[in-house]
Amino acid sequence: MRGVAVIGVGCSKFGELWEMGFRDIVISAGVEALEDAGLEGREIEAVYAGNMSAGRYIGQEHIASLIADYSGLADLHVPCTRVEAGDASGGVALRQAYMAVASGMHDIVIAAGAEKVTDVPNAMEILSSSADVEWEVFNGANLPALYAIIARAHMKKYGTKEEDLAMVSVKNHKNATLNPKAMFKREISLEVALNSPYVAEPLKLFDCAPICDGASVVILASEDVAKEYTDTPVYIKACTQASDYIALHSRRDITTMDAVVHASRQAYKIAKIDPKDVDVAEVHDSFTIAEIMAYEDLGFVEKGRGAELIREGVTALDGDLPVNPSGGLKAFGHAVGATGVRQAVEIVLQLRGDAGKRQVDAEVGLSLNIGGTGGTAVVTIFSR
Amino acid sequence: MRGVAVIGVGCSKFGELWEMGFRDIVISAGVEALEDAGLEGREIEAVYAGNMSAGRYIGQEHIASLIADYSGLADLHVPCTRVEAGDASGGVALRQAYMAVASGMHDIVIAAGAEKVTDVPNAMEILSSSADVEWEVFNGANLPALYAIIARAHMKKYGTKEEDLAMVSVKNHKNATLNPKAMFKREISLEVALNSPYVAEPLKLFDCAPICDGASVVILASEDVAKEYTDTPVYIKACTQASDYIALHSRRDITTMDAVVHASRQAYKIAKIDPKDVDVAEVHDSFTIAEIMAYEDLGFVEKGRGAELIREGVTALDGDLPVNPSGGLKAFGHAVGATGVRQAVEIVLQLRGDAGKRQVDAEVGLSLNIGGTGGTAVVTIFSR
Repeated sequence: MRGVAVIGVGCSKFGELWEMGFRDIVISAGVEALEDAGLEGREIEAVYAGNMSAGRYIGQEHIASLIADYSGLADLHVPCTRVEAGDASGGVALRQAYMAVASGMHDIVIAAGAEKVTDVPNAMEILSSSADVEWEVFNGANLPALYAIIARAHMKKYGTKEEDLAMVSVKNHKNATLNPKAMFKREISLEVALNSPYVAEPLKLFDCAPICDGASVVILASEDVAKEYTDTPVYIKACTQASDYIALHSRRDITTMDAVVHASRQAYKIAKIDPKDVDVAEVHDSFTIAEIMAYEDLGFVEKGRGAELIREGVTALDGDLPVNPSGGLKAFGHAVGATGVRQAVEIVLQLRGDAGKRQVDAEVGLSLNIGGTGGTAVVTIFSR
Repeated sequence: MRGVAVIGVGCSKFGELWEMGFRDIVISAGVEALEDAGLEGREIEAVYAGNMSAGRYIGQEHIASLIADYSGLADLHVPCTRVEAGDASGGVALRQAYMAVASGMHDIVIAAGAEKVTDVPNAMEILSSSADVEWEVFNGANLPALYAIIARAHMKKYGTKEEDLAMVSVKNHKNATLNPKAMFKREISLEVALNSPYVAEPLKLFDCAPICDGASVVILASEDVAKEYTDTPVYIKACTQASDYIALHSRRDITTMDAVVHASRQAYKIAKIDPKDVDVAEVHDSFTIAEIMAYEDLGFVEKGRGAELIREGVTALDGDLPVNPSGGLKAFGHAVGATGVRQAVEIVLQLRGDAGKRQVDAEVGLSLNIGGTGGTAVVTIFSR
């Protein structure tokens, strides 16, 4: 396997983009990434597109062909492939693109993620189809309910408090005020978070990330080719993916996401680093409890002690290990299939020193993208 | 890139499987493939699953995690990835699995394809979302209508007749009588085909493949590893994928599928063969006109002369180049996302000499899987 670098990144606005269709959103991110890389579309050799449910959100399947078409790549007949793994679809697209370059099959490959969710009234029902529909969702356990069950178990076993969860939300909202592209650029107080209504007890409104429209694109190139395009390549040192039981009731312990543990340990091994070498991370805070579990399952702290990191400010923007400097899914917005790629965009900006007012000091970054309640996890390690 | 071989194949029944759910169908194909390979599930290193629209057909996304779960692979946490490209989803899964082994990333990988379509009343509407929904389908041009437009253009430009189309159907139905797993095991006469009602003029009922439930699985291994499992490996010499404009109105010529031309020329080059070296082929006859165009676009005959091959019996089971010995999509059944893998199963059985009463004499086989009206094409070349 050969070295792979990110040579360009792009990201659309995230939010309720009433004025934009799926095609517009994808193209806006793609054009930005091409400009960032100083690349012509004709140099692209393959495209991987992560998308969870265009079939249900916009009534359109086969979106890789659609993207080829609307990106002006159709004449080139390059392979364009959609991948799907719930809200880990973007991460899976990134991994496939990484593999396509690392294997030597292609030199320049696009990883895109996109979702348009605001055209339908039942966006949450559709998102919940990343859990086990027949055995969980059909019986009323949609995604917030399932994460509430996880949170309850974590609280009971490890003493995690509702206040800890709220602090994750407060931190991520604060970070988002420094991010021009974030959906929610407003600080919230701990009191506001704690007094927000329950969505699924113990998870309140401010514990739940908003699903929204958005797209992100990263352009990958082999290490050698990257040098022709950029002076600030960001290298992908590892990109790993693991699966788990789709339904919570089959897992050995719902307070741990084994897919995250498995993927991250493999990634550290491939990248030859320890968890403590990570300087900045974007993790999947679809619900605040997921961020606290991510601290633990990624090995940033011992199992059960995740809440300490948020209490002690370790993961704040000015802490030792800033997590979700972008604002995270909670405040940047969660455009479902776009999120895994969007996380990569943030880590690249941070490692390049292009993150503006939210810039942290970092050499090594990590992103964690999760599908559903942990049926899929993708971990990517980046370095300057 | 290293050599890749098929070491096991499995296929569920194809048809209206009222008694089986999505999970049952997938598992029935998977178990057959594992038994065929003499392999334990624990030896699998990765899974690629092709599926077009579980989101709409059964209300379930994230099906790769579901498949990991129900296949007993969840404990292993191996990466399981769903890919989608309309009814080329199976072919794309095969190609990703091929790349995963060829690149040296994995030794043993599963390519699966599955679809359960009979739980909904609007299966054709959903299938049509592989075309451009906003610009084609919304205006009434669903898949049969779009293929009818293609057929009309082909007839006008090259003199292809409705009788030629009917002969494709008659041939494929005849082949299916020899295939125990086919959906329609009944011979039809040319008269019956020609007198069937129009679905979208000039395409009649017997020009349209039935969409149905079904799943197929092939197990791939590196050339070296394959030898430990089988004495009759079938090698994949090339597996290529190309995209095109999703909508017909943007294409330079709707009587040619450029994605097929592009993917096949690349495949021949990689496999170092000519079209004339192909001894048997499974092509995507979702509509009979597609089979005639495939003869041309794959280079089996000059452009515009596809109908001659069916008139002269060249592609009959006892012809020089048997096409769709399985019965094809028309008579074996078209389980949408399963079809690309199902075609591979047939070619492997033919090259191994395990095709029973429909056995042909072949050293080199080819499969062609198409998404929608040609927005994606996957061509795979196999040899003994």
